[in-house]
Amino acid sequence: MIIYKSADWWEAFIHLKSSAIIRKLFVRVLWIGAYATLVTASDMYFHYHDHITVDKEFFSFLGIMLSLLLVFRTNTAYDRFYEGRRLWGHLTNNCRNLAVLLHARLPVHDQQRRTYLARLLSSFPLALDGHLRTGVQFDRLDEPTAGFREQLRHVGHVPSRISALLQEFHEQLLREELILPTHLLTIQRHHEALLDVAGACERIKQTPIPFSYSFFIKGFISVFVFIMPFNLLDTYQLLTIPVTMFGAYALLGVEMIGDEIEEPFGKDSNDLPLTQMSTRMRINIHEILGVPVTEEEKSLAAEQYSVVY
Amino acid sequence: MIIYKSADWWEAFIHLKSSAIIRKLFVRVLWIGAYATLVTASDMYFHYHDHITVDKEFFSFLGIMLSLLLVFRTNTAYDRFYEGRRLWGHLTNNCRNLAVLLHARLPVHDQQRRTYLARLLSSFPLALDGHLRTGVQFDRLDEPTAGFREQLRHVGHVPSRISALLQEFHEQLLREELILPTHLLTIQRHHEALLDVAGACERIKQTPIPFSYSFFIKGFISVFVFIMPFNLLDTYQLLTIPVTMFGAYALLGVEMIGDEIEEPFGKDSNDLPLTQMSTRMRINIHEILGVPVTEEEKSLAAEQYSVVY
Amino acid sequence: MIIYKSADWWEAFIHLKSSAIIRKLFVRVLWIGAYATLVTASDMYFHYHDHITVDKEFFSFLGIMLSLLLVFRTNTAYDRFYEGRRLWGHLTNNCRNLAVLLHARLPVHDQQRRTYLARLLSSFPLALDGHLRTGVQFDRLDEPTAGFREQLRHVGHVPSRISALLQEFHEQLLREELILPTHLLTIQRHHEALLDVAGACERIKQTPIPFSYSFFIKGFISVFVFIMPFNLLDTYQLLTIPVTMFGAYALLGVEMIGDEIEEPFGKDSNDLPLTQMSTRMRINIHEILGVPVTEEEKSLAAEQYSVVY
Amino acid sequence: MIIYKSADWWEAFIHLKSSAIIRKLFVRVLWIGAYATLVTASDMYFHYHDHITVDKEFFSFLGIMLSLLLVFRTNTAYDRFYEGRRLWGHLTNNCRNLAVLLHARLPVHDQQRRTYLARLLSSFPLALDGHLRTGVQFDRLDEPTAGFREQLRHVGHVPSRISALLQEFHEQLLREELILPTHLLTIQRHHEALLDVAGACERIKQTPIPFSYSFFIKGFISVFVFIMPFNLLDTYQLLTIPVTMFGAYALLGVEMIGDEIEEPFGKDSNDLPLTQMSTRMRINIHEILGVPVTEEEKSLAAEQYSVVY
Amino acid sequence: MIIYKSADWWEAFIHLKSSAIIRKLFVRVLWIGAYATLVTASDMYFHYHDHITVDKEFFSFLGIMLSLLLVFRTNTAYDRFYEGRRLWGHLTNNCRNLAVLLHARLPVHDQQRRTYLARLLSSFPLALDGHLRTGVQFDRLDEPTAGFREQLRHVGHVPSRISALLQEFHEQLLREELILPTHLLTIQRHHEALLDVAGACERIKQTPIPFSYSFFIKGFISVFVFIMPFNLLDTYQLLTIPVTMFGAYALLGVEMIGDEIEEPFGKDSNDLPLTQMSTRMRINIHEILGVPVTEEEKSLAAEQYSVVY
Repeated sequence: MIIYKSADWWEAFIHLKSSAIIRKLFVRVLWIGAYATLVTASDMYFHYHDHITVDKEFFSFLGIMLSLLLVFRTNTAYDRFYEGRRLWGHLTNNCRNLAVLLHARLPVHDQQRRTYLARLLSSFPLALDGHLRTGVQFDRLDEPTAGFREQLRHVGHVPSRISALLQEFHEQLLREELILPTHLLTIQRHHEALLDVAGACERIKQTPIPFSYSFFIKGFISVFVFIMPFNLLDTYQLLTIPVTMFGAYALLGVEMIGDEIEEPFGKDSNDLPLTQMSTRMRINIHEILGVPVTEEEKSLAAEQYSVVY
Repeated sequence: MIIYKSADWWEAFIHLKSSAIIRKLFVRVLWIGAYATLVTASDMYFHYHDHITVDKEFFSFLGIMLSLLLVFRTNTAYDRFYEGRRLWGHLTNNCRNLAVLLHARLPVHDQQRRTYLARLLSSFPLALDGHLRTGVQFDRLDEPTAGFREQLRHVGHVPSRISALLQEFHEQLLREELILPTHLLTIQRHHEALLDVAGACERIKQTPIPFSYSFFIKGFISVFVFIMPFNLLDTYQLLTIPVTMFGAYALLGVEMIGDEIEEPFGKDSNDLPLTQMSTRMRINIHEILGVPVTEEEKSLAAEQYSVVY
Repeated sequence: MIIYKSADWWEAFIHLKSSAIIRKLFVRVLWIGAYATLVTASDMYFHYHDHITVDKEFFSFLGIMLSLLLVFRTNTAYDRFYEGRRLWGHLTNNCRNLAVLLHARLPVHDQQRRTYLARLLSSFPLALDGHLRTGVQFDRLDEPTAGFREQLRHVGHVPSRISALLQEFHEQLLREELILPTHLLTIQRHHEALLDVAGACERIKQTPIPFSYSFFIKGFISVFVFIMPFNLLDTYQLLTIPVTMFGAYALLGVEMIGDEIEEPFGKDSNDLPLTQMSTRMRINIHEILGVPVTEEEKSLAAEQYSVVY
Repeated sequence: MIIYKSADWWEAFIHLKSSAIIRKLFVRVLWIGAYATLVTASDMYFHYHDHITVDKEFFSFLGIMLSLLLVFRTNTAYDRFYEGRRLWGHLTNNCRNLAVLLHARLPVHDQQRRTYLARLLSSFPLALDGHLRTGVQFDRLDEPTAGFREQLRHVGHVPSRISALLQEFHEQLLREELILPTHLLTIQRHHEALLDVAGACERIKQTPIPFSYSFFIKGFISVFVFIMPFNLLDTYQLLTIPVTMFGAYALLGVEMIGDEIEEPFGKDSNDLPLTQMSTRMRINIHEILGVPVTEEEKSLAAEQYSVVY
Repeated sequence: MIIYKSADWWEAFIHLKSSAIIRKLFVRVLWIGAYATLVTASDMYFHYHDHITVDKEFFSFLGIMLSLLLVFRTNTAYDRFYEGRRLWGHLTNNCRNLAVLLHARLPVHDQQRRTYLARLLSSFPLALDGHLRTGVQFDRLDEPTAGFREQLRHVGHVPSRISALLQEFHEQLLREELILPTHLLTIQRHHEALLDVAGACERIKQTPIPFSYSFFIKGFISVFVFIMPFNLLDTYQLLTIPVTMFGAYALLGVEMIGDEIEEPFGKDSNDLPLTQMSTRMRINIHEILGVPVTEEEKSLAAEQYSVVY
């Protein structure tokens, strides 16, 4: 994700180079510029714009209809982006609350259990980060017990396994009467949030906007942009080229940005910084439970990169 | 559901053949093309476009109004589609959490109870899949106990019956003190999610957009498309035919896609892959509870078909 | 509610006769046609269209503004319609879950208590149906105990009374230790959903869109339709009549359908089939609790009428 | 709030006089008519419309942009109006459910406690009504104990105090074992809804739409309406006056209605009938707990005034 | 935040000076006026408007598309603003409910514990206010115990630490049997709301609208405003200058206000009055628990400044 101050227009232009999608958009606009040049040039020889009259109101109506569809599509894509962020925020809140509750129950000097819990709980967001991206990076997980990573490697659904280990830990605390049944009820609510978030992120990842709808919009834009220079020729002559490019910028831009942000768990420059968030949760959980982390790890979470993943 | 990468325009065109609704849309657009040809041809003889003037702004306003209605309609249809997906995601989460909780309480080697639970719980999504489509396919359900399928065949509402059996299982665990009352409270929350999802899916299925509204929009589009070639004749002459077809593509497309996605439980190519999701839940539940499934079954759930149901 | 298949355009036209609001819309459009005929006819004598020029863009802008307001209004009305449906779905889910929980706790052969519960719980949706429409039809309620109907006749708010009786039943079960305190907690959640749904339905019924807003839109449409033929006269001459009627169809249709669906508890053809839903809940509750119902009653709930209430 | 039937256009016109905001709108439209008359009259002498050409498409675009902003603003205002209504409905539901639960636990003949509870609970909505309007009217509150009103007069936040007294009552019941700990859990959920509703209503009241936004829209409309007659002069001459008034009606109307309904707790004719709702809750609570109220009080709550507060 | 009455247009103009963003908008509009003057002046010499024809419908369509994007963007920004307000309202409600519950359990004369709780709980919103703005201002926090502020200075995430201290307090009460396990369950729900609100506010603060989207809109507006005077020249000549400024006011205004309100935790004049809200919570909590505060502090919270932070 690109960190920026939204009110500063100038900085926005500087940051431009970090955004792959904006660069891709400019490339496409250039291609359409080439196409418009072709149309305009051939028109100079064949003068077909003398034979074509254009119903400008009709194309204006079609353009507005297309805009409405695109805005609806962006809206939907943004909702998915923001739901992804909301889910990771929910994960943060529940990890913190779980740590706060167990901190107050675990004996102050029981450093062994505190360390076990801090490491197990911290490994959940890190594992989910990998699970949603290219696969769990087992080397980055803390090991609450020796062989933990090895054990996870043979598991189909890693987040479920970590959740089950945590549940076994709660039951163990209950059996040793370190927590009362009444605590378990609250713990369960925080605990089940882990798999709820995992499931909801999987949903966002696996369910793009329906194919027909996506295809329909792409078809609509393609034809609209293809026709555009013919509609503008008689009014603009040579200026048709930049005007077509501006129109294409507007239409393609909305569509492409929608495509990018609707799956917020990748590593595009607009995607959510899952790794940074996981690291922050890890530091938080350790601090609350009183388990030390190295200064270097702390700085990793605190630092504000201009582009973070 | 068609699995695709939304950012790739070229792949979108390739996948086209998998989408029944897009094919159907093209057929309708061809028919309207035929109608526009008829109008244009007869105009060559009767020259009625000399006698008609058109208030283009008025039709532009009506077109924009129609677009607004269609976008609202698509919005509503998409919300229903996505609510359906959200509900099945909720089902997945609650099945997993239920399995995690009971895994930690059931004795590690009590393979009999673990198998019973895994099979009974897995049969719920499979039964719901059938219940929402053409009827429960009893042969596909696991049998926790012999005669289970036979027993269900005589039941009016199968999901309620499976839920009741599960409830009896919880009560049995409580009686044998394998779970405490405090566990039951959490179990209940996950358990009641099953029937909540079933009821909400039934709601989506049984309550289309109100008839008057659907009829009103269909009437509006029909008249609008019928008038369209007459509005375009004096400007476009022969080009009226492709322009009318483009306009019809835009209007009919939105309406038809809305109609298709508003009921996401069918087996159209844009509908939700209920069967795949049920199979995945089944594998998940078995893995969490430590009940083995065959490799073949695992592959069934993991594989990414290009079109899945 | 009219049951239909939304993707079938032809069936939609056939079903037309069942929709009172669409018929009413056609009548109003005819009246406006008569008015447009009057304007056109008088124009033939007085030729006032020679003296009027029209700012078509200005009226196009006003028309689009009106469209936006109407779409917003429809949106709001549909939300209320769908919230009503959602509430009754919530009621169904909670009745089912309550029945499932108590089925697992009540002794299998305690037919007396099962019958009492099935009848008392079933009477809630039936009473709410009447409460939201023209008044509770006491004859349609089951009698869990003799004199039950008579007792309810003297009560101000019938759903509250049934809820209180159910609460007394739960307390009785607790006193006889047929349920544990832990069960009561879950039961309470399902139980309180009954009055929550009742209160929310009352809210929808008692709070239409604010009067000023409704009046403002009606005033806007009236003036707009009144001016419409004058705007179209110079372009269309005799064709002004059908074009005005088409414009009026579009504007009045959205407004009228919004008015109808915003109160979904009446007996208009687009309203929710409360009675059918109540009957289905009744069958469901009886089946889950193992209390027999006659085949005739079952068929009542199962059948799919083309228009249901 | 004005009670009306939204589908009846004629009644809407009759009710007009009850709506202060619509009257205010008409006055403003008249003033703008006077301004348009001035512009038109002075144009007859100076003929400046000969020197001005107008880019009608540009003003159409600005008008549509303004419409979009206004519709968004109305949407927001309506959401606040409806959230207010939803909150009071939530209050009703929780008061009823609390009364139902305690009715089933309190001994049938313990008329003293029933009366205390009915009066204390009923005083919450009445106090909140005053708190949100001009200040609590202590004389209208029931007195559960002598001196209750006097005691409240010295309190900064009255609803919090009533909530605290109610909490003390619950604790007293627990101490006397009239309720079990398990009941307290459910009671707490209903009980905390009281302060949740109070806080949310305070939020709606204290947080209008941000000032910049409100100012920006008012500035936009002012300039737009100021320019409007100059844009229409060359087309309409004398007809500029009514056409400007119609345009102003549309723009000012949406803005003014938005301003009015965004704070639904006043005593404008579109505001929520808080007092009527409080009285209804009072009757309901007394009926459920079996505490008699006079017939006169009942009729107060039942009656449907055409304008209620 | 600027406190104002939204229905009063005149007051709105007076308050203008308090709004930094509106002043900034006016400055930008003046710059664009200067640019338009330059274009118009140079046109007088070079007469390039003779060589340019403009497709006004095309620019109208692009303008409407831009408006749709801007309204969507404002919508999103406002949702974030209002979610921030909602979160702080949620914090208020949970602090009050927590205080009400513990007030009823703590012995009436246990002034020591009441003071400790009131001060600890009050410090949470004050610390969160600082945490979201420029950093916690430790001097403004109450000290429940000596050295409290000093201790917090060495903590990475202050709100988590206060939450953990509060949790230890609850556990202490449980150990001394001042509260029952059943109370703890309710307390936990209120208590976890503290960190939930903190996490959600952090989310709003850290996740602006995706960079590509923000950049895309800024690019779109820049080009559109740059082209605007050339589009208007042939119609308006000298009047091009004010008309361009009006158009720029509309477009830039919506964008800038969106930029400002999307991060509502700063100290801009439209941001939320976090400090005032924290102070109010403090007075409330003290009043409910019966812990005296000075009159001066009370007046701080009660007073209605015209601009509050």
